[in-house]
Amino acid sequence: MPSIKHVAITGGTHGNELTGVYLLKHWRNNPVQVCRDSFATELHLANPKAHGHNRRYLDQDLNRQFNWPDLNDHALCGYEQNRAKSLNTLLGPKDEPRVDFVLDLHTTTANMGVTLVVKSDDPLVTGMAFYVKQRLPEVTLFHEPSERMDDNFLISLGRRHGLLIEVGPVPQGLLRWDIYHQTETVVGHCLDYLEAVNRGEALELPAEMPGFRFVQKVQLPENERGELIAMVHPNLQDADYQPIAPGDALFMTLDGQTLPYEGEETLYGAFINEAAYYDRHVGLSLMRPCTIKRSV
Amino acid sequence: MPSIKHVAITGGTHGNELTGVYLLKHWRNNPVQVCRDSFATELHLANPKAHGHNRRYLDQDLNRQFNWPDLNDHALCGYEQNRAKSLNTLLGPKDEPRVDFVLDLHTTTANMGVTLVVKSDDPLVTGMAFYVKQRLPEVTLFHEPSERMDDNFLISLGRRHGLLIEVGPVPQGLLRWDIYHQTETVVGHCLDYLEAVNRGEALELPAEMPGFRFVQKVQLPENERGELIAMVHPNLQDADYQPIAPGDALFMTLDGQTLPYEGEETLYGAFINEAAYYDRHVGLSLMRPCTIKRSV
Repeated sequence: MPSIKHVAITGGTHGNELTGVYLLKHWRNNPVQVCRDSFATELHLANPKAHGHNRRYLDQDLNRQFNWPDLNDHALCGYEQNRAKSLNTLLGPKDEPRVDFVLDLHTTTANMGVTLVVKSDDPLVTGMAFYVKQRLPEVTLFHEPSERMDDNFLISLGRRHGLLIEVGPVPQGLLRWDIYHQTETVVGHCLDYLEAVNRGEALELPAEMPGFRFVQKVQLPENERGELIAMVHPNLQDADYQPIAPGDALFMTLDGQTLPYEGEETLYGAFINEAAYYDRHVGLSLMRPCTIKRSV
Repeated sequence: MPSIKHVAITGGTHGNELTGVYLLKHWRNNPVQVCRDSFATELHLANPKAHGHNRRYLDQDLNRQFNWPDLNDHALCGYEQNRAKSLNTLLGPKDEPRVDFVLDLHTTTANMGVTLVVKSDDPLVTGMAFYVKQRLPEVTLFHEPSERMDDNFLISLGRRHGLLIEVGPVPQGLLRWDIYHQTETVVGHCLDYLEAVNRGEALELPAEMPGFRFVQKVQLPENERGELIAMVHPNLQDADYQPIAPGDALFMTLDGQTLPYEGEETLYGAFINEAAYYDRHVGLSLMRPCTIKRSV
């Protein structure tokens, strides 16, 4: 593997997810915590204007603006579409990036604990996820491999891609120490891993680990006027990564009627009752367990 | 007591507190649930524009705009200041209100369960709070009596004042069935109480009940540039209504140092880590236990 020289840690990609924003402030005052001998770490507040307004975004979700065609489409000129182009200049350009690896910090209102979103089969990325899960077995891995140039996530700006770190549950617009500290711990392991790889240390990583793969989003029920008429069922609330079998309770209507899961396959919930997805009336994601293999 | 003829239930006074907004939708489709024989119940979305933007408010906190001088000050022309004047016309006018009683529905990100904010010593108000707590002993009562014309809360538009119902924990911008259903249950008891009073039923209410009275807000620690440098301590997080003694941990700095409570009196926390108070860097309220007496 070529060595890693430049690592970017980004936070506030969603402006009302404060954990990453305040970790960046903390590390700016304590850079030794994110410094490693073999590479340089840089810290970037990804969406300062949305953060200033305590909103996820102003015009569009920043973390969907990084695929190669969109970065080159100057007709896309919303605030976040422009900001993505700036970040592409700062960290990329995507087709020949200056930065080797991006760690992007997120939070969720769902009870997902620490989730690492693996969007690349590059062994550097899967190896990092495995290294973290080895040390923190409660971590959940999502496996969503995608061609880097097609990927619309911020982490795809990194030459070797990157890792999205999602931690919850925490409401938008506030800090919880448990969530903040978990995120800090995971980032520390990620940087240690890159340092070990650069040094050529022999890491005893498993060849495969369990994870989940996205199947589909499930809409919250609406009436004919497009208004919500139900919410996540109390049996499902906070039950991320638990099985949802055919007939299990999925939603509760405003007047207390249970609506069951009508699928035919037992799947697993994630992002259950994520506040950020209410704008599109999404109630949860359904995931299928998978085995993630680490190509070497 | 003169009889109650008109009761208003208001929700979405803070636009990103969805529980009240969706209970209003539910009751509009199921009016029998909030109808009682002896009075008329009306339902009002208090801040529709803030709700449309999924924000607490657009220009200023609506629930601080209802004192009599402000309602009559036409130089105060922010969106919520105008909206307060409209609600004053709709429910009041405050000096001779059409509506007899206002139930205003709120949520909090703090772990406060159901809290009833009693802002009047009118026996109709204290009696309602006692009636609810008799049936739901886990309910907490706040006692903040205030002259109705001076009170800046929406509930002060009611001729006999009203009751603010605060339920949590729930993040902003989403619905949880437990919070929604608790709020619905409390409103049902409030309406039953008014019906019983109107009918002249003999209610066996205690002469006094325990509650809390507001002492002061506590600021989150800031640096010289006014930036947050600490958050609620994990010992205090979710510990609303538990005692805070001198020396107890109050905050944790971004680099993990514990900052103790430096007061001299053991007090009790409320609104601990309420997201809505981050705009003013308020970390919690300190409360003192009190005995609430019901004048008859």
